[in-house]
Amino acid sequence: MMDYPLLLRTFLIRTAKYFSKKEIVSVYPEGVFRYDYGSYYKRVCRLAHALKSLGIRRGDRVASVALNDHRHLELYFGVPCYGAVLHTVNFRLPAHHLAYIINHAEDRVIFVDEDLLMFVELVKDQLKTVEKFVVLSHTGKMPQTSIQNIVLYDDLIRDFPDEYDFPTDLNENDPAMICYTSATTGDPKGVVYSHRAIVLHSLTVGITFGAGESDCILHIVPMFHANAWCAPFAGLIAACKQVLPGREVINMEKLCRTIADEKVTFTAGVPTIWMLLYDYLEKGGWHDFSSLRTIVSGGAAIPRTLLETFNEKYGFPIKQAYGATETTPLVSAAIPKSYMADLSRDELYDIRTSVGIVVMGLEMKLVNTEGKEARMDGKEWGEIWLRGPWIASEYYKDPERSKEAFADGWYHTGDVATMDSEGYVRLVDRTKDLVKSAGEWISSVDLENTIMGHPKVAEAAIIGVPHPKWQERPLACVTVAAGQSVTADELKDYLKDKVKASWWIPDDFVFLPEIPKTSVGKFNKRELRRLYAEGELKPAEVA
Amino acid sequence: MMDYPLLLRTFLIRTAKYFSKKEIVSVYPEGVFRYDYGSYYKRVCRLAHALKSLGIRRGDRVASVALNDHRHLELYFGVPCYGAVLHTVNFRLPAHHLAYIINHAEDRVIFVDEDLLMFVELVKDQLKTVEKFVVLSHTGKMPQTSIQNIVLYDDLIRDFPDEYDFPTDLNENDPAMICYTSATTGDPKGVVYSHRAIVLHSLTVGITFGAGESDCILHIVPMFHANAWCAPFAGLIAACKQVLPGREVINMEKLCRTIADEKVTFTAGVPTIWMLLYDYLEKGGWHDFSSLRTIVSGGAAIPRTLLETFNEKYGFPIKQAYGATETTPLVSAAIPKSYMADLSRDELYDIRTSVGIVVMGLEMKLVNTEGKEARMDGKEWGEIWLRGPWIASEYYKDPERSKEAFADGWYHTGDVATMDSEGYVRLVDRTKDLVKSAGEWISSVDLENTIMGHPKVAEAAIIGVPHPKWQERPLACVTVAAGQSVTADELKDYLKDKVKASWWIPDDFVFLPEIPKTSVGKFNKRELRRLYAEGELKPAEVA
Repeated sequence: MMDYPLLLRTFLIRTAKYFSKKEIVSVYPEGVFRYDYGSYYKRVCRLAHALKSLGIRRGDRVASVALNDHRHLELYFGVPCYGAVLHTVNFRLPAHHLAYIINHAEDRVIFVDEDLLMFVELVKDQLKTVEKFVVLSHTGKMPQTSIQNIVLYDDLIRDFPDEYDFPTDLNENDPAMICYTSATTGDPKGVVYSHRAIVLHSLTVGITFGAGESDCILHIVPMFHANAWCAPFAGLIAACKQVLPGREVINMEKLCRTIADEKVTFTAGVPTIWMLLYDYLEKGGWHDFSSLRTIVSGGAAIPRTLLETFNEKYGFPIKQAYGATETTPLVSAAIPKSYMADLSRDELYDIRTSVGIVVMGLEMKLVNTEGKEARMDGKEWGEIWLRGPWIASEYYKDPERSKEAFADGWYHTGDVATMDSEGYVRLVDRTKDLVKSAGEWISSVDLENTIMGHPKVAEAAIIGVPHPKWQERPLACVTVAAGQSVTADELKDYLKDKVKASWWIPDDFVFLPEIPKTSVGKFNKRELRRLYAEGELKPAEVA
Repeated sequence: MMDYPLLLRTFLIRTAKYFSKKEIVSVYPEGVFRYDYGSYYKRVCRLAHALKSLGIRRGDRVASVALNDHRHLELYFGVPCYGAVLHTVNFRLPAHHLAYIINHAEDRVIFVDEDLLMFVELVKDQLKTVEKFVVLSHTGKMPQTSIQNIVLYDDLIRDFPDEYDFPTDLNENDPAMICYTSATTGDPKGVVYSHRAIVLHSLTVGITFGAGESDCILHIVPMFHANAWCAPFAGLIAACKQVLPGREVINMEKLCRTIADEKVTFTAGVPTIWMLLYDYLEKGGWHDFSSLRTIVSGGAAIPRTLLETFNEKYGFPIKQAYGATETTPLVSAAIPKSYMADLSRDELYDIRTSVGIVVMGLEMKLVNTEGKEARMDGKEWGEIWLRGPWIASEYYKDPERSKEAFADGWYHTGDVATMDSEGYVRLVDRTKDLVKSAGEWISSVDLENTIMGHPKVAEAAIIGVPHPKWQERPLACVTVAAGQSVTADELKDYLKDKVKASWWIPDDFVFLPEIPKTSVGKFNKRELRRLYAEGELKPAEVA
């Protein structure tokens, strides 16, 4: 067989040539912009010439700080097909992290959305490698700015030819994209995606969710978030119509109008968006979901009642999926098997609220505390380990942290889960949040939810604290409900017949006026551990 | 990203582990055999142990002379995942070719269907490398045979363990399968398929035809014919139910019963089978095609009226596709685009009778007589050139003939075609059957069909004959209809306003009692050229 590399170029050219009339649509507050793959390709070619004119060499990193629109989609193919690497920047990171990742990636140019310029202005004096700023503007006006060496994207590319000879001599393992995880501790970690990984991942996405030429994809997932789950790549490869909602993604009325007007069949997003949509719908918001066929939800667990309501009340068929920045990102999808049609409603939702079965092309194993593969019984816990052609093998320029996560040829996800006899995986906890008592795991999430079931408890967070005999024991940090009082013994009694084993019951309870939280509202266990280490958390018998 | 090879092993293990209950069905004259992927996998593991016990090494060739059943499907994965190469032998070849390909491939073992043993017995004394014969028997009885060193497959694998540690250190470019084309001239030519090519091709088949876990595939294409178009691979990868009809494939009543009983959704085959089916249906044969979703037809053009009748009268939705042994084989598929719903019935059948648009992952160009890419106008002719990860780069151990077909990094198919503005390709002729007059191509097929439109003509075959000024000119070999007489001038007159240009009209006509035919009933142009070279074809004015 030919030694023919898997490059994005092949797919870009095929779609531009044979599906030139298929549409790409950007939704802006002022109205809708639409063009077709034929026109798209011409601008991608102009972009490649522009990159050359800026002196960008093969392998150089180029950043996008942008919302979801057709210009960002031009960068998605133009930059990698040219031979450079697109760094999709998460502008929601704290400023010091924003500066860190741009410097760490050594980005030479920043393509920045006119609406997001302020994020770049905030850090511009800390940037060490950026030579040029290019403004992605749909209004066509250069915004007021103190940044020097800045140009409008449309001006930059305008005068170049609309044909470009995209290189065929790239290696399929050459980098195409780079993305940083929003690390909970330390600096963000970079993951580099190759052409090969993106192509293989995109083909698998297409088969897993049955996406084809007749589909119209609405991009709700931000394009800085793990390649927008590769939907822009899978969409172009299958010659789908693509709809990019920009900042209107959080305008639920506009989103619902767009779904109906553009006859969207496929979309994907995080539960945060589905919560916004749920509120809008429950208030009687207008919608017509008749065109929708598949909705993928990932990034966090979707509550079962929400899934049920969406499916049954609104005909909004959500499929849960699982992945990570390190996995390009698709790992598994919760799709019932064809022979499961006779299952009860409850059994089907058990499956649909799992994170699903590992997709074709990857290998998954759940590794228990003894380093062995956990049984497929839906009960035994194991850390999810992964390997496959779109699983990262390292963090970019970070050998120390790479060593931990990518040992023995597998990516250790840090997620602990069960797998049932049909292969469906259910997440239990993060390894770092598990308490390891006498060599056995205790799930902090399980224990917290059980304690929070007590009527007098408002919030409960569990951390593992060192113990001379059992290595670690769970410490419960509890906030009581307004106007209530409770004793540690009362809670221990309450837990007796509710926890998996008696040794799950915390020996000690700390009563706090408030549990410290992270910026996104999760329990800040790191802070709790720090407070414990400094002797600030004192167990008490009564609150 | 991880350096993780594309091997069939990954997909085999995933389907066996997570879709172990999905069925595989073999249909025999005596009845139906069924088991599941869980049991399938155990036998594939036993087979791997058996190959080891036979001393088969990595890269060794192992032949199958077999019909479509579950044992053949075990070989399809067992042999390549073990690290050896499965040579699927076309037992319909003439005996000297059968012996040639087995010797040329240096097959060490032959797995032979009990019903096909006679084909092997015919050539057994000519075989130079075969050490062992293994009989694939569904009756469980060793047939009467003079062959020594022969064993029943089920006996061979029975006592081995049902787990096998399939190698992970194969290279994805290592050979998995080998198949020989039934050459029209000279010895058959071998094409070797790598794990990588098969995996990428199978994923693309899945997206192109929308095949997923809920599909049930009926394998009509013989498994010796270009990997059965990779449907067994694509089917296992997507965890489809698979149905293998064995010799019952030509029993139309049984085939129709099987489609209904097993709820077949997807099948593929050559027009020969569809003609048999058509006859059966037109005679009022029982059928229920309500489960069928996709039928792929390839290997030869399907007549338009047949396609129309199948679609409209019988609800049998045929999609035409194009490929070759050299292309694994899928190259293009004739699927109307989603925005073509408003086309007229005629326009839609124009598309459905084309060979379609090149599939994702491949590059196609039509190269005209000047060596340039033909226009996408539906008119200009060009030879189809292909490149991509599942296109062959050579014939096995045949540098001489490889040089011709695989020049400049492209596979030269020898098929001349047009491509319209939407990318749909229509075949015109084989390059070797075109007449090249003054540097311009004349289609022998077109010209023959036009001449055969004359009421007094029964058959017409065109060959190109050397000409001192125009390089080549068309010579018409004509058989007149029973009891008729016709003159050369009459025919020239008739053609005047029917051919593309006046220089298409043959200068000379040869009248023959019969046109020589090949074994499959096509005009034997090779024989006509030989007769012409030997002065046996004399132009005449009247017949």
